[in-house]
Amino acid sequence: MLTIVGELINSSRKVVKEAVQNRDEKVIRELAKVQTDAGATFLDVNCGNMIHDEEEVMEWLVNTIQDEVEMPLCIDSPKASALEVGLNLCKFGRPMINSLSGEEGRYEAIVPLVKKFDAKIVVLCMDHTGMPVTSDDRMKVVDDLYAKLTKDGIKDDDMYFDPLVKPISSVTTAGKEVLDTVRKIKVKYPDVHFMCGLSNISYGLPNRSLLNRLFVVQTMTLGMDGYVLDPANSSMMADIVASTALHGQDSYCGGYIKAHRKGLLG
Amino acid sequence: MLTIVGELINSSRKVVKEAVQNRDEKVIRELAKVQTDAGATFLDVNCGNMIHDEEEVMEWLVNTIQDEVEMPLCIDSPKASALEVGLNLCKFGRPMINSLSGEEGRYEAIVPLVKKFDAKIVVLCMDHTGMPVTSDDRMKVVDDLYAKLTKDGIKDDDMYFDPLVKPISSVTTAGKEVLDTVRKIKVKYPDVHFMCGLSNISYGLPNRSLLNRLFVVQTMTLGMDGYVLDPANSSMMADIVASTALHGQDSYCGGYIKAHRKGLLG
Repeated sequence: MLTIVGELINSSRKVVKEAVQNRDEKVIRELAKVQTDAGATFLDVNCGNMIHDEEEVMEWLVNTIQDEVEMPLCIDSPKASALEVGLNLCKFGRPMINSLSGEEGRYEAIVPLVKKFDAKIVVLCMDHTGMPVTSDDRMKVVDDLYAKLTKDGIKDDDMYFDPLVKPISSVTTAGKEVLDTVRKIKVKYPDVHFMCGLSNISYGLPNRSLLNRLFVVQTMTLGMDGYVLDPANSSMMADIVASTALHGQDSYCGGYIKAHRKGLLG
Repeated sequence: MLTIVGELINSSRKVVKEAVQNRDEKVIRELAKVQTDAGATFLDVNCGNMIHDEEEVMEWLVNTIQDEVEMPLCIDSPKASALEVGLNLCKFGRPMINSLSGEEGRYEAIVPLVKKFDAKIVVLCMDHTGMPVTSDDRMKVVDDLYAKLTKDGIKDDDMYFDPLVKPISSVTTAGKEVLDTVRKIKVKYPDVHFMCGLSNISYGLPNRSLLNRLFVVQTMTLGMDGYVLDPANSSMMADIVASTALHGQDSYCGGYIKAHRKGLLG
């Protein structure tokens, strides 16, 4: 079962920024509904670029979304106080926090919130030494954070490791290192989950959609089970449905045939 | 580096059957040229359904193809005498034989031809017990045939294992078992190659092209490096180019960008 975090409610997107500035509920409600209907299992709520009033915007966004849909939310901010405002308001299912890392002070600020709100947690493969290059760099961070989280009572099933996707246009092996990381995490910690944003993989290249879609198929093959993406992207969702059937996780291809009948496979 | 065996010259296809019956060189030459231009690294030559005059048809096909293009050929027949006629005529590079298996008598008939013509060999994961179901069934055949071939002096680099693809519409896990087989072969015999035909995976389902294309991406992720397919299928070739770049096998995405400039990525 994949975790699909709908990425569209992010104030770094122009349409959301304007909706936030005008407190235009209609735009936010529509984005919540579209993503829910398209198959999201969480909705991301990110207003991290609203530096001066992030807490207030977070409150407005979470309430507006929950007036429209009954969906678990992924509260997404670098700022603990903004996370807490959002988490406090979540009404439907267990929330997710995006994100924790091994950077100075971040672990100590976030883990109390994970416990207080019984939240699932996205764990970035990054620490104070900066962005990782190789899969071994990433595994060092995974090993450290897994040990600390386990000691703090967080269950494997609630951890979502994000291997951090970087552009293959600048480092040829950037995709391969992510694939290797997923393979290694899956062998070493079979019960944890994964989460990643995709679009960085294709940064700077033409035909980005093709690369983003195939990177989902490749990472799914190695066991990745969570993505932050636009669930209203029908090509992407068709690839996910087909990929799931090919992996033997769709009995007699029932889900695939149903998607075809709804006209979702293109 | 992928091995792409162009599948279009097969007399079970109507257009080829008619060209063979009329000894219409133009059709065969065109199929040879189109596949070569599209990126095939071998051309398959199969007239196995011409039961009464397979040897004569094989001779005509091989000569006609080689009048048009300088490509290595994959001589494809269940009949040793037809294989020998084709192999005897191959002029460009080392030929490939499709195929050997563990079925009664087949090994003994084919291996002398592999040696005589210094051919590469496609090895089906099948023996006298019939079509395999699980990846363990397949590995038993792989282990047996690998041991025999090695004893007979065939090098790892010249073996192409075909895990035998069956429809996910009739057995939900048919794709997963192939994926598991590729993973296991790659771990146990890292220097052998792979070969598979794809279209069986999607038999009986709608939108077959989507499933066929994604099954290439999935199997490539686990190390499969050879396919029998139609290289003139531009969507498939675009997926292969993108997949190769994502796997870190395309320095600074040069091949991907070149394919984009040629308009090959859709």
